[in-house]
Amino acid sequence: MKSLTKELWMDIPQRRMIVSLHEQVEDLVRESGVQDGMVLVNAMHITASVFINDNESGLHADYERWLEGLAPFDPGTDPGSGGYLHNRTGEDNADAHHKRQVMGREVVVAITDGKLHLGPWEHIFYYEFDGRRRKRVLVKIIGE
Amino acid sequence: MKSLTKELWMDIPQRRMIVSLHEQVEDLVRESGVQDGMVLVNAMHITASVFINDNESGLHADYERWLEGLAPFDPGTDPGSGGYLHNRTGEDNADAHHKRQVMGREVVVAITDGKLHLGPWEHIFYYEFDGRRRKRVLVKIIGE
Amino acid sequence: MKSLTKELWMDIPQRRMIVSLHEQVEDLVRESGVQDGMVLVNAMHITASVFINDNESGLHADYERWLEGLAPFDPGTDPGSGGYLHNRTGEDNADAHHKRQVMGREVVVAITDGKLHLGPWEHIFYYEFDGRRRKRVLVKIIGE
Repeated sequence: MKSLTKELWMDIPQRRMIVSLHEQVEDLVRESGVQDGMVLVNAMHITASVFINDNESGLHADYERWLEGLAPFDPGTDPGSGGYLHNRTGEDNADAHHKRQVMGREVVVAITDGKLHLGPWEHIFYYEFDGRRRKRVLVKIIGE
Repeated sequence: MKSLTKELWMDIPQRRMIVSLHEQVEDLVRESGVQDGMVLVNAMHITASVFINDNESGLHADYERWLEGLAPFDPGTDPGSGGYLHNRTGEDNADAHHKRQVMGREVVVAITDGKLHLGPWEHIFYYEFDGRRRKRVLVKIIGE
Repeated sequence: MKSLTKELWMDIPQRRMIVSLHEQVEDLVRESGVQDGMVLVNAMHITASVFINDNESGLHADYERWLEGLAPFDPGTDPGSGGYLHNRTGEDNADAHHKRQVMGREVVVAITDGKLHLGPWEHIFYYEFDGRRRKRVLVKIIGE
């Protein structure tokens, strides 16, 4: 079995942002020498997601609005008026912990003939829901 | 390490539909000869899901109604009146990109003693959110 | 390739509850002797989730309220008045099948240097949405 393990550092200057990881993951698969296997790509922080969808800025703006509707940002600590109990810890990022559940923590992608085995429009993204600090994404490749 | 890679073609005649993949995945696990490992099953298109839940038509109809509430179909391009920016690309399937995030892209299932290692009611499904064209599902098996 | 397969029994005395699986999974990774690989942790029942997020009781209470808003418990069988078609099977747990889709079926976690390779706040949980009976979680480890 071959394997490759790599932590990618993310440093997003704003609270929320979608960033492509696609080329970095492609490069790591090549570097691993794995011809046949799987790659796991996951956020190492619980206020961020890794997901696969379209590389289209309109859709990304749609996601922003949609997620804000499903789990609105609110620094308040009173659930009765839109806040979150989690924010009683001194954080203001409870919404981020919810948005990340909708978009997911991780993707697992097949490697075939030494390459990511993806459909024509599949693109790997990082979704930051509480940025303005350094965070990590893990890439783990196993196979032969 | 043994592996098996197979693309399954889906050709759903309507926009939305839930279709079982269960027997096909079972057959491929048998064919692979893998006794101990994992199988990844993922939609190769970003307007479809692979998920595991109950093989019960009432629940599937409930999902339809529920997802339509969470991310309604709307061919419009104006977010202010229910549309989506993504539809400015000429598509009318922005809702499908949202529904697929709720239901997920992929499942990873354990293989033990040469069989899918599942609970009593776990059943593998494909969920088409924008059909009427040929699309693919990937099955990737690795193990020994 | 090394592997380890273990079913964990869950016996939650109430309908809904979040329970840590973290130490049990850590122990199984150690027991497996795998230095480099992946561990799959999944609910074997379709009315429960395995997810990774914060070990913070306020957030867990927020999730409860949030999921109840997204897919309310209702034993009724009439979708027109808040019920679910699935409950016509004699069950009253249709909401649980929906909540589990939001929180997810499974997590896949990397193993590096013989340990779970996680970020600082990542914690593995089981989320029961329809308890008061014995159910199982599967832990499958593969690697070298």
